[in-house]
Amino acid sequence: MTDTLNRPAADREVRVADLTLEEKASLTSGASFWTTEPIERVGLPGIMLTDGPHGVRKQRAGADHLGIADSVPATCFPPAVALGSSFDPELLERVGVALGEESLAEDVGVLLGPGINIKRSPLCGRNFEYLSEDPIVSGVMGTALVRGLQSQGVGASLKHFAANNQEADRMRVSADVDERPLREIYLRGFQRVVQDAQPWTVMCSYNRLNGVYTSEDPWLLTSVLRDEWGFEGLVVSDWGAVNHRVTGLVAGLDLEMPSSDGRTDAELVAAVRAGELDEAALDVAVRRNLDLVHKAVAAARPDATYDVDAHHALAREVAAASIVLLRNEGGALPLEPGASVAVVGELARTPRYQGAGSSLINPHRLDNALDEIRAVAGAEVPFAAGYSADGTADAALADQAVAAASAAGTVLLFLGVPAELESEGFDRDDIELPAAQLELADRVIAANPNTVVVLSNGGVVRLPFADRVPAIVEGWLLGQAGGGAVADVLYGRVNPSGRLAETIPHRLEDSPAFLDFPGEHSRVRYGEGLFVGYRWYDARAIDVAYPFGHGLSYTDFEYADASAEATADGIDVRVTVTNTGDRDGAEVVQVYSALPGSSVVRAPRELKGFAKVSVPAGESRVARVHLRRDDLAYWDTRADAWIVEGGAYELSIGASSRDLRATVSVDVAGDDVRVPLSMHSSIGEVVEDPIAGPVIRQALAAEGSFMADPAMFKMLASFPIGRLTSFPNMPLDRDEVERVLAEANARS
Amino acid sequence: MTDTLNRPAADREVRVADLTLEEKASLTSGASFWTTEPIERVGLPGIMLTDGPHGVRKQRAGADHLGIADSVPATCFPPAVALGSSFDPELLERVGVALGEESLAEDVGVLLGPGINIKRSPLCGRNFEYLSEDPIVSGVMGTALVRGLQSQGVGASLKHFAANNQEADRMRVSADVDERPLREIYLRGFQRVVQDAQPWTVMCSYNRLNGVYTSEDPWLLTSVLRDEWGFEGLVVSDWGAVNHRVTGLVAGLDLEMPSSDGRTDAELVAAVRAGELDEAALDVAVRRNLDLVHKAVAAARPDATYDVDAHHALAREVAAASIVLLRNEGGALPLEPGASVAVVGELARTPRYQGAGSSLINPHRLDNALDEIRAVAGAEVPFAAGYSADGTADAALADQAVAAASAAGTVLLFLGVPAELESEGFDRDDIELPAAQLELADRVIAANPNTVVVLSNGGVVRLPFADRVPAIVEGWLLGQAGGGAVADVLYGRVNPSGRLAETIPHRLEDSPAFLDFPGEHSRVRYGEGLFVGYRWYDARAIDVAYPFGHGLSYTDFEYADASAEATADGIDVRVTVTNTGDRDGAEVVQVYSALPGSSVVRAPRELKGFAKVSVPAGESRVARVHLRRDDLAYWDTRADAWIVEGGAYELSIGASSRDLRATVSVDVAGDDVRVPLSMHSSIGEVVEDPIAGPVIRQALAAEGSFMADPAMFKMLASFPIGRLTSFPNMPLDRDEVERVLAEANARS
Repeated sequence: MTDTLNRPAADREVRVADLTLEEKASLTSGASFWTTEPIERVGLPGIMLTDGPHGVRKQRAGADHLGIADSVPATCFPPAVALGSSFDPELLERVGVALGEESLAEDVGVLLGPGINIKRSPLCGRNFEYLSEDPIVSGVMGTALVRGLQSQGVGASLKHFAANNQEADRMRVSADVDERPLREIYLRGFQRVVQDAQPWTVMCSYNRLNGVYTSEDPWLLTSVLRDEWGFEGLVVSDWGAVNHRVTGLVAGLDLEMPSSDGRTDAELVAAVRAGELDEAALDVAVRRNLDLVHKAVAAARPDATYDVDAHHALAREVAAASIVLLRNEGGALPLEPGASVAVVGELARTPRYQGAGSSLINPHRLDNALDEIRAVAGAEVPFAAGYSADGTADAALADQAVAAASAAGTVLLFLGVPAELESEGFDRDDIELPAAQLELADRVIAANPNTVVVLSNGGVVRLPFADRVPAIVEGWLLGQAGGGAVADVLYGRVNPSGRLAETIPHRLEDSPAFLDFPGEHSRVRYGEGLFVGYRWYDARAIDVAYPFGHGLSYTDFEYADASAEATADGIDVRVTVTNTGDRDGAEVVQVYSALPGSSVVRAPRELKGFAKVSVPAGESRVARVHLRRDDLAYWDTRADAWIVEGGAYELSIGASSRDLRATVSVDVAGDDVRVPLSMHSSIGEVVEDPIAGPVIRQALAAEGSFMADPAMFKMLASFPIGRLTSFPNMPLDRDEVERVLAEANARS
Repeated sequence: MTDTLNRPAADREVRVADLTLEEKASLTSGASFWTTEPIERVGLPGIMLTDGPHGVRKQRAGADHLGIADSVPATCFPPAVALGSSFDPELLERVGVALGEESLAEDVGVLLGPGINIKRSPLCGRNFEYLSEDPIVSGVMGTALVRGLQSQGVGASLKHFAANNQEADRMRVSADVDERPLREIYLRGFQRVVQDAQPWTVMCSYNRLNGVYTSEDPWLLTSVLRDEWGFEGLVVSDWGAVNHRVTGLVAGLDLEMPSSDGRTDAELVAAVRAGELDEAALDVAVRRNLDLVHKAVAAARPDATYDVDAHHALAREVAAASIVLLRNEGGALPLEPGASVAVVGELARTPRYQGAGSSLINPHRLDNALDEIRAVAGAEVPFAAGYSADGTADAALADQAVAAASAAGTVLLFLGVPAELESEGFDRDDIELPAAQLELADRVIAANPNTVVVLSNGGVVRLPFADRVPAIVEGWLLGQAGGGAVADVLYGRVNPSGRLAETIPHRLEDSPAFLDFPGEHSRVRYGEGLFVGYRWYDARAIDVAYPFGHGLSYTDFEYADASAEATADGIDVRVTVTNTGDRDGAEVVQVYSALPGSSVVRAPRELKGFAKVSVPAGESRVARVHLRRDDLAYWDTRADAWIVEGGAYELSIGASSRDLRATVSVDVAGDDVRVPLSMHSSIGEVVEDPIAGPVIRQALAAEGSFMADPAMFKMLASFPIGRLTSFPNMPLDRDEVERVLAEANARS
């Protein structure tokens, strides 16, 4: 509660040694739902941490609970599903700055976000809060948000760490993920944000990871996050994520939220007194809490305000940049001012602009598409709701809509997922639009084939009508200014430049996690492994509705002169992009890598970098994309390390994952991962060794050896050499083999 | 070596106590490649164990090694890929009897087979040695083979136990399989054979299972195999599967094969002397070895012979019953005697009739299809090889084949996988027929559309020409009499009745394990989980070339009067099958189960029973299929037990997994798996409880509780109640909640 906050002069920082054991324990858990514990004896104030991520959701004064609706007004920026689709980190940094300004004005020290979990399944109820199915997109965009926010002296809370990819049973479920997908898909984005932006805090998730609560996983919270990645901030629990306080603290959890009214603080104190918990471990967490409070206090600006109008304008700009034009046949869009247009669909009047749950912002104002279209249409725009706000069928509304559609030159048909189906706390059951809307769509399209569909949805939806309409505008959830943004795009005031940060499949059954989501009995196997999102559809050659990276423009771009050059820290890719149309526009140049003949399993294409480049009509620009050497690495389970495999990487440069315009090849020097020979080495491996190989080959080829038969050799090539030496009548002496292998290892 | 065998009068059995420590150690490993250790001091002979599984592969006298080719003549019955397709356990039992006769005649005590591993991927190099992608088929057919063999006093060796589903890196790779697929798919067939047929021996596999070598896995070899399943026989290592002898023995490995020339025996002795190994553990293995030798000796019949001609005839009968007629449009088959026919394809003359590796039989005789066709054709049958025996293209041969095809009424085009691509020891890289054959097929079909394709292959192949030919005969590998069997089917002397025991997909990319095969760095994740074979294609609604269970006949069958009745130990299913054509035939009636609304993940259809029923032309027969209650169970990971879920099971009765003719519903009483309430129970679970529910519901609905908001309740329903009680200002007292839960548990 803000009224417990007490901001002293920052003339003296409190130190760990200043505090009693009880004070230290209390400092590592909240004082309330939203504030840290002030310790008045030493003049230490509490600070406020509050939701995020796409606006400031600060509970009204006195409301110390998890109620969602009762928060102070704030700018509702587009949720992450939209932000990710912008593919524009500079724009996201500006959003971060604006969020920082609003946080300062509300005396919020840490804003709980961004959420960068991978969209493993289109069903995840919280996908609207996440950026992408790809870790590079998530990492780059998440970094931008953190940088912007923290540039204002407000801490970010990078969440939900980690492998929190579903809502079902989220408090108990164990995400069972193998090492490579865990590192390469689920942790890679977190690693990037931590290393590039040092968020003040990281929020551990509710779930378990390979059987261990993330809130008490020393491997995750300490070995990986701090020792490997160099995280310097504080780890806070998601609200209620603490399972066992002492275990969590030892693992690296610094702050439990919210308050447990002192119950778990007492557990900490008792554990120290009983000698079960080293007080030094507590001191580490206390120091991090003190650092956080000091940072927040130092940055606090009690008189801060912000420009509500400017933030609304930014929200509109971002929303427009996030809209993805999925389809546009025959120049259906943009609309000309004065064109005959009818708007159909309650969602045009009553917008869905954010998802439900802890991120629900109480917006300063709220635009709707209908009003904004009417404002720019230059003609009368009839409207028919078509269906009721709750998504149920209504024959009269549908009939009116069909009539309105029939009379119009172009129908703007607004469809979307009802609010009650997309929320934190539970997942969707399918990727269907409501049956009433699909039926309406069939009738409207039959009545007027010139129907442009505008979508409002947090998670992707199946689009059975896609081939029957000239244009589809993916409008996601666009925040409080989304209505204006939609109008801007429909009428060409903004040339759309958003790209899909996630694949839209033809059917849910095609999706990678279809058979493993959400698991059962509190375990979920990530059986698709590395093959998340487009990696799956590409590897299995499955046709999709719209591929990852896809998004149309009102102009056309041509690619030329692609080149790539290896540098000390990666690869510099350049390509000339020419706007061959008559409108200014922006293109998202995407660079995917492949390594033909790789020794490890890889997706056919992996995004390694992208650049959004604005190109005026008729002009050319050189897009530069730097691929980091680190991003070329795979996680090697033998070496337990990131390894860059050497070889000729194929870099495909394109406008989407399935619209590749150029391919260049670059030789990259590899890291050394030599595995020493041993008695467990296979015959096939040993005979390939330059030193041991010839010796063993000769022995096996000895007169009378059954291994002299090439077919027999091929059949037994996978035998460990130590096993073969045990066989009767083998031409291999065990001691001699060990000597040869040792010599080979020594000389290599 | 047989000449070391010494068969004493069976008047006195050797006991464990008769033996010294060194003798006991020696008895638990082989004396040579193929024999157990005789202990002459006490008059104990050695016995011979030799490959299997589809014939007796006994190394010639003096050949103490793993050389494959140098074995005594034996009947080469069809390999398991064909046997499984017969869907005829009675026939397989007769094959088992014949194998027993040949083993007795060769003084073989244990024949190493059957192999019943699940065909997880079509690429597995040893799929020709395995029965099915389905555990019920594998279990039922494996049981029949073991029963037949052991009825003659010859031991079976059920292999390869377990999860040995690939050849790549088979000596080291860890099959990483979750509990449910492990139990329900990969172990279920083994369990059935063990419990129904008590094989004398079980052979552990080479690989690791979830990180542990199966040769030293106490869970697998003792807890599951003996304690749960009641196995009474001996566990023998696959040849060279022992990693660490002492660890293996403690885990339940009774016999190491082959000999290690005493090296590992000495390790056992040393471990006992050092007190690291309890001699009692060794004694258990020794007793099992003595039991095995005594059984083999008691059954030995040094004067045994067998009827080579009768076995050849049986091999032909089985081969014909295993052929699967995949396609037959417009009555292309059967051929009329006297019809104009040309045979194309070297495989008609030089048959592929078995796979390479340890199962390679040296056949008594070998029929080829070309001669057999000519014998029954009643007309001259021109032949053109079309391609060379090694599968490479040969323009002249192809030209001749096209010319021959053009001139014929019907072309019999023999295609298949070259021998060198299908072997124990390595996997296939794809499911393609050789490019030269596919090119030839295109030309032949273009020259004469009336082309019947006859396939020879151990693993399934892609059939790109399927829609362009009137008929396809899947001839697998059919053993030494396969040529005659093919002629029998082509000319209608046998009405085909084989069924696919594995799915033929359109593309390798569609197959369940495509992205997880064969793994890397000695680990392979069974990411498809339960969804192996048809379970995958059905669950993801993927179109296939030919579905599991498919196979045509020259007559038609109608299904009527389907019924199902629950009994104490399962369900009795009955259906009347009427042969509506004018030829006698046999139908394989298949029963698949589903449980709509199940609380656990299930495939849309799971085979639970089948019956092959012969029906004379124009007559009807009642097919009876008993489904075992045990086979309805799923493996519950919470209870660590098989659980039959109660409910209305939907039983689909059909001629294939995608040709379902009738569905009946049966109510089955469930097992109790109540999970007690605890502080880890979710709010959603607690409020459903009849006792605790109302109390907690009322508390949460209290005035001012944020949980009184239905949307908030839904969002937080997955919260463990213990976590919620920790939140500030919650209307739930922790002690009171614990009391309510305890009361609910006590009263339920």
